[in-house]
Amino acid sequence: MVWERLRDKRLHDKIVQAEEAASWIEDGMTLGLSGFTRAGDAKVVPVALAERAKREGKPFSVNVYTGASLGSDVDAVMAEAGIVRKRLPFQADPVMRKKINSGEMMFIDQHLSHTAEWIRSGVLDPIDYAIVEAVAVTEDGYIIPATSVGNSNIFVEYAKHVIIELNMVQSAALEGLHDVYTPGKQGEREPIPLTKVDQRIGQIGIPVDPAKVKGIVITNQMDSPSTIVEPDEETAVMAGHLIRFLREEVEKGRLPRNLAPLQSGIGTVANAVFNGFLDSEFSDLTVFSEVLQDAVFDLLDAGKIAFASGCSITLTAEKMKHVMENLDQYRDKLLLRPQEITNHPELIRRMGLISINTALEVDIYGNVNSTNVSGTRMMNGIGGSGDFARNARLAIFVTKSIAKNGHISSIVPFVSHVDHTEHDVDIIVTEQGLADLRGLAPRERARLIIENCAHPLYRDQLRDYFEEALTRGGHTPHVLEKAFSWHTQYAQEGSMLAKETASSR
Amino acid sequence: MVWERLRDKRLHDKIVQAEEAASWIEDGMTLGLSGFTRAGDAKVVPVALAERAKREGKPFSVNVYTGASLGSDVDAVMAEAGIVRKRLPFQADPVMRKKINSGEMMFIDQHLSHTAEWIRSGVLDPIDYAIVEAVAVTEDGYIIPATSVGNSNIFVEYAKHVIIELNMVQSAALEGLHDVYTPGKQGEREPIPLTKVDQRIGQIGIPVDPAKVKGIVITNQMDSPSTIVEPDEETAVMAGHLIRFLREEVEKGRLPRNLAPLQSGIGTVANAVFNGFLDSEFSDLTVFSEVLQDAVFDLLDAGKIAFASGCSITLTAEKMKHVMENLDQYRDKLLLRPQEITNHPELIRRMGLISINTALEVDIYGNVNSTNVSGTRMMNGIGGSGDFARNARLAIFVTKSIAKNGHISSIVPFVSHVDHTEHDVDIIVTEQGLADLRGLAPRERARLIIENCAHPLYRDQLRDYFEEALTRGGHTPHVLEKAFSWHTQYAQEGSMLAKETASSR
Repeated sequence: MVWERLRDKRLHDKIVQAEEAASWIEDGMTLGLSGFTRAGDAKVVPVALAERAKREGKPFSVNVYTGASLGSDVDAVMAEAGIVRKRLPFQADPVMRKKINSGEMMFIDQHLSHTAEWIRSGVLDPIDYAIVEAVAVTEDGYIIPATSVGNSNIFVEYAKHVIIELNMVQSAALEGLHDVYTPGKQGEREPIPLTKVDQRIGQIGIPVDPAKVKGIVITNQMDSPSTIVEPDEETAVMAGHLIRFLREEVEKGRLPRNLAPLQSGIGTVANAVFNGFLDSEFSDLTVFSEVLQDAVFDLLDAGKIAFASGCSITLTAEKMKHVMENLDQYRDKLLLRPQEITNHPELIRRMGLISINTALEVDIYGNVNSTNVSGTRMMNGIGGSGDFARNARLAIFVTKSIAKNGHISSIVPFVSHVDHTEHDVDIIVTEQGLADLRGLAPRERARLIIENCAHPLYRDQLRDYFEEALTRGGHTPHVLEKAFSWHTQYAQEGSMLAKETASSR
Repeated sequence: MVWERLRDKRLHDKIVQAEEAASWIEDGMTLGLSGFTRAGDAKVVPVALAERAKREGKPFSVNVYTGASLGSDVDAVMAEAGIVRKRLPFQADPVMRKKINSGEMMFIDQHLSHTAEWIRSGVLDPIDYAIVEAVAVTEDGYIIPATSVGNSNIFVEYAKHVIIELNMVQSAALEGLHDVYTPGKQGEREPIPLTKVDQRIGQIGIPVDPAKVKGIVITNQMDSPSTIVEPDEETAVMAGHLIRFLREEVEKGRLPRNLAPLQSGIGTVANAVFNGFLDSEFSDLTVFSEVLQDAVFDLLDAGKIAFASGCSITLTAEKMKHVMENLDQYRDKLLLRPQEITNHPELIRRMGLISINTALEVDIYGNVNSTNVSGTRMMNGIGGSGDFARNARLAIFVTKSIAKNGHISSIVPFVSHVDHTEHDVDIIVTEQGLADLRGLAPRERARLIIENCAHPLYRDQLRDYFEEALTRGGHTPHVLEKAFSWHTQYAQEGSMLAKETASSR
């Protein structure tokens, strides 16, 4: 069984236990781990490393680079053991988040397409060990990744040593679904030849020099299931707003009938919006995204999506079982690529994606905060939202208009952290409505966002702020001394609501 | 003489006076004007239009799209006449700025590579008249632009009517220096084939259907000269910091010996930094920029630059005379392209540019404000700085550490407007020093920016803010209620300086 998957005979004598592989890693080293939003992550060697560090009780830390967030509590286990010095480019774990926000761990919150460039150009600490999950290694030394490609190709190319976690329970049928293309160095590379979502431009796996492979660890653990929750009434309403807007764009001749390649960020709201396409008139859709979530497979099953390309498959437990047992029926409709390709500005701009990502908060001029609660506390990271929003044909941000039972407004006078500037945001959607900001000056945008997207509880407060700001003048009028007053009031009193509104509720 | 330049015989009967051309333009129309940072702008028809509107005294306004800022007081004249309803994507005129900041004029501050996409996809109001300057029209109907290409190609392609300002005093020798390439629609286009700065991929001019040309106006006015001032001691020090840094990057093997294609933003500081290369050891340099300023021609003359490509040539009066009289000696070292190409993410990322742009203010985590003074009052616009910074190999921002005789610090706790986020800024340079932010988490960046880049007058104040912020915690610690206190104190008291510092000066 193992030899059916480990087909490169040069590697047959390299099988080791996770503990042995972990023992090779030294204090101060830098690791490149496979894994993108819980999919195809290195599962056992990082955990063995954390256990070893705890057992030995000596100061020990490493830099950890990944594709995106890991699953299987790997980030939690490493963070708890205190072994991560620097982490990039994305995480989504509560324990790790706490360490980042307390300053115990250094986190670089990076555009997901940029990590590969930094590694290639030697800006980051060089990678000592790439630890990547695989479903097979071919006769001629290609690592076949599992449910994600992420940054694994660049980690394997630039690492001094490679450890392969050969996962016997990830479906062998994943082989053939990957398309691994790696651009050359900046200044020496050719155009990326991809012009259509369904185009194959690379190789079926990651080429590796067998001499660099130091060990192969056999594993038997499925990916952690996705934690997204079912669409609710509000997310369905948001999907409705968006689909109505897209329909009008088609009618105006601005979009083809099958729209344009779709991208959707990770998470419940974006997934729910995708779900809205199920009952729509749209068909022959294509997806060029990062993470392929449940809704993409629902749409594939329903015959709505003709082709989907991503850098990971992250599904709920039930959906994962269905998809993995029926992989053959998706074989001609699915490709997994490196995140440098799925998120590449060149391709996003060329194909003109429709990009749907989640905002934490939006301000009256359309600036978006995707990362830091109250401007300071990191949630997960910007992920690919910047790669997509800046270069998409339509940069759409979705958020519910309020949170915490109405005590937080997602529409604020001034966002407390800016991830996407007013120059990059085309459309805002909340359950209240949609604001199309294209072709509008800031003062025009403010009125539209307040009237169309803000919750009625907060509209008067926003109007008051904007009216006062107008008395000060400017291209983007503000009352700077009150710009963050909503956030500071929330910090002190637990609500952004004006006192009179709060008392009349 | 005219017929030597107006070689398309089908257009010979279309010569009209500026006043007649202006009379065709109706209230509510949308105009696409040639012109990029004073170069190759439509010079007489817009002015005739403003005069007509003033003369007629009826309410009259048009939307005005351009490449970037215009020269010859065209923006001033139009703004004074009150005939501009909406303006995009960039301007740099004091009169227009005032109207924008008072809310009388709507301004869309847009990434300069994005305007063409909006026009192509029908998002903006359709263009009624393209008014473009030319040095010639060829036998087979190619408009040969003058000193800029800007957005003229896309205006001519999509406008209902075209008016050509045939400028008899712009050098006829400019013909042959243009390389006009226009991508197709998103989703239908091929990769842009350009991989090297000196590569020609397009046509020598802008093809135009003669039936669309409604009039040709003969003009005799040179471009307005550039207003940049000479390098001073501080800008020379900044250039020194940057060149030392680049030298170290070469030594570390991160950059080739002739660096990478260079881009420099418009303005005195960026020009001065380029000037610093004159006395450096670097040679065989290439430039892939928007505006080619004086320093580029100094470097070409000195044999330091092997090839320069831009979308406009904007020079001081003396330099302009020298360059135009000696165009033949630059013929094999120079190309002018549309701004969609010079600023295209695909090309900037592929070639891995070194990008140098000017910041208005920078905060302790590396966010940059390029546009709005005190968060509200528009200066010029983001221009191409976002196109470049996001996609460059090295995104460098330069600014003097203080302004207004020390009463303004360019390094602040929280920038009052964000144009470039912490995810996009690699290097900050002031006359105090350089901060290399790559690979650093926000808390690491803050210390480096404060110690290396802030003026000594403000270092203690910044340290105090950061230390207090650290007591609050978070990934990007802040004291939100004090985040803009420097700006509000400046507004009230004319200084950001702490009282004790101010009194001890």
